[in-house]
Amino acid sequence: MTSTAADPLPSWREGPAKAAILAFVAKVSQEGSADFIPPAERIAVVDNDGTLWPEHPVPFQAAFAIDELQRKLLNEPSLANDPMVRAALAGDLATLMAGEHFEGLLRVVALTHAGMTHQAFRQAVEAWLATATHPRFGRPYDALTYQPMQELLRHLVASGFKTYIVSGGGADFMRVWVERVYGIPPEQVVGSTARTTFELREGVPVLTKTLDYLFVNDHAGKPVGIHQCIGRRPVFCCGNSDGDHAMLQYTTIANPHPSFGLIVHHTDGAREYAYDAVSKSTGKLVHALKEAPERGWLVVDMATDWSVVFAPD
Amino acid sequence: MTSTAADPLPSWREGPAKAAILAFVAKVSQEGSADFIPPAERIAVVDNDGTLWPEHPVPFQAAFAIDELQRKLLNEPSLANDPMVRAALAGDLATLMAGEHFEGLLRVVALTHAGMTHQAFRQAVEAWLATATHPRFGRPYDALTYQPMQELLRHLVASGFKTYIVSGGGADFMRVWVERVYGIPPEQVVGSTARTTFELREGVPVLTKTLDYLFVNDHAGKPVGIHQCIGRRPVFCCGNSDGDHAMLQYTTIANPHPSFGLIVHHTDGAREYAYDAVSKSTGKLVHALKEAPERGWLVVDMATDWSVVFAPD
Repeated sequence: MTSTAADPLPSWREGPAKAAILAFVAKVSQEGSADFIPPAERIAVVDNDGTLWPEHPVPFQAAFAIDELQRKLLNEPSLANDPMVRAALAGDLATLMAGEHFEGLLRVVALTHAGMTHQAFRQAVEAWLATATHPRFGRPYDALTYQPMQELLRHLVASGFKTYIVSGGGADFMRVWVERVYGIPPEQVVGSTARTTFELREGVPVLTKTLDYLFVNDHAGKPVGIHQCIGRRPVFCCGNSDGDHAMLQYTTIANPHPSFGLIVHHTDGAREYAYDAVSKSTGKLVHALKEAPERGWLVVDMATDWSVVFAPD
Repeated sequence: MTSTAADPLPSWREGPAKAAILAFVAKVSQEGSADFIPPAERIAVVDNDGTLWPEHPVPFQAAFAIDELQRKLLNEPSLANDPMVRAALAGDLATLMAGEHFEGLLRVVALTHAGMTHQAFRQAVEAWLATATHPRFGRPYDALTYQPMQELLRHLVASGFKTYIVSGGGADFMRVWVERVYGIPPEQVVGSTARTTFELREGVPVLTKTLDYLFVNDHAGKPVGIHQCIGRRPVFCCGNSDGDHAMLQYTTIANPHPSFGLIVHHTDGAREYAYDAVSKSTGKLVHALKEAPERGWLVVDMATDWSVVFAPD
């Protein structure tokens, strides 16, 4: 108990999961260690939805989109004729989530994430975060990050890692709040993107959001996005679903450096949610979980390994 | 003369250009200064071809592509039927450079920059840099960076800036050598890109280069690329051509922070090359130069402001 003050992961219960994380970070960051990794190569990639905060009852960006739709309907009632808008407002997630890349959801995203300036979008996200609350937990969405993962992010940074969020969520959406919420600068966000346009409007530079050249940073897209934005292989990877499977493989298979793969397994229906193969939202986890033992990926049991899930109010 | 040891820009002659750079960097990085910019917001974006190293007689990546074509012809003689291959091998730059985005050049780039694994491409670039020499200066291409700009990059980093290369060149091409040559990590490169593909090949992760979703990081593409990769506005921008015009505007117009725009004007035919409105290679400079006085962009006169152009052998 005397070491508590120095424990970088106080919300992790003592056990093999915590020990494995601490041992890996120590061995690669201690100069003279046989497994030492130069600081410039200590790239950590961390999924967001389901890994750093919940993805139920819907991914938080989808909740934002639904709230935005409702706002837009006041001025454009004809939007209600769109079947995907109706599905979104009715909470018909099955329709929205159909398709490999959630095409229905993306239709709603298109209506709420394109055609405006980057500045206007940013303000909409900020306004939403300041007022919306999670239906089950009753707290602002950005107050629902997982305390153990926040501690892990800080421990990685303190150990010389550069931490990247690598998420299927929109880069523009996340960059509004990642610095405040995770202490991660916007340039360390790899997310889904589309090409903006640049112009001088009345003499002032303006970037406008479009859906052209949409890039979905999920599944095999995650290594592609990592290569595009970072340009080198990570050595530490955290995810929670099959959407993170390719990123776990890219990080840990035949990597010339020691590497670490971590899967957050949602086992705690009492404090959060319990799901893997069957999920009512995103976050289906089958293939990565099956492959974990063979690859040596750490499967974190949320119920057992975390003494606290969310940061206190 | 007593201050020479502490001069961060010894290859810049004393004068208004050097004074303006030093004054700006000092005022934005000194805590308590009215113009202080928090370190996280000190983003500098710097063009490469013509700004950090020459772009004559052709951009160095084009020289790489031509040498690669010659290598490929040994195994695929039928390539010589391609008019753009013939133009490249004949040094017919007019044909290669025609079109707003140098479509002819890009055809050659396609033949030499797609279809191989990222690892194979990287090895090809390294092998080329180790053996090829510049036709006029007789030195390896990566030994031809501008010493004054190297000093400026280091001064910016020492003053808390995060420096990004923002170039029309390929991100994959630059990331091979930017760390060694400029001390800039690969993740701080914004360049032209296409989407790679990811797969496990014989159980090993492989990224393959394609030309799908080609993004040309030039002209209006530069602010777009900056937004895509960095996600916030720069406060310091260096360029040398109209390809950098939009990036200069994005950095300096209506920026809530103090900002600085710098144009390297190629005025030194004796030590390097002299060109602006008329260039036999890339680097045409008309509109940005015309707008410079109105915007307060610093126009660096290479012949006057730089006591040294290249680093010594």
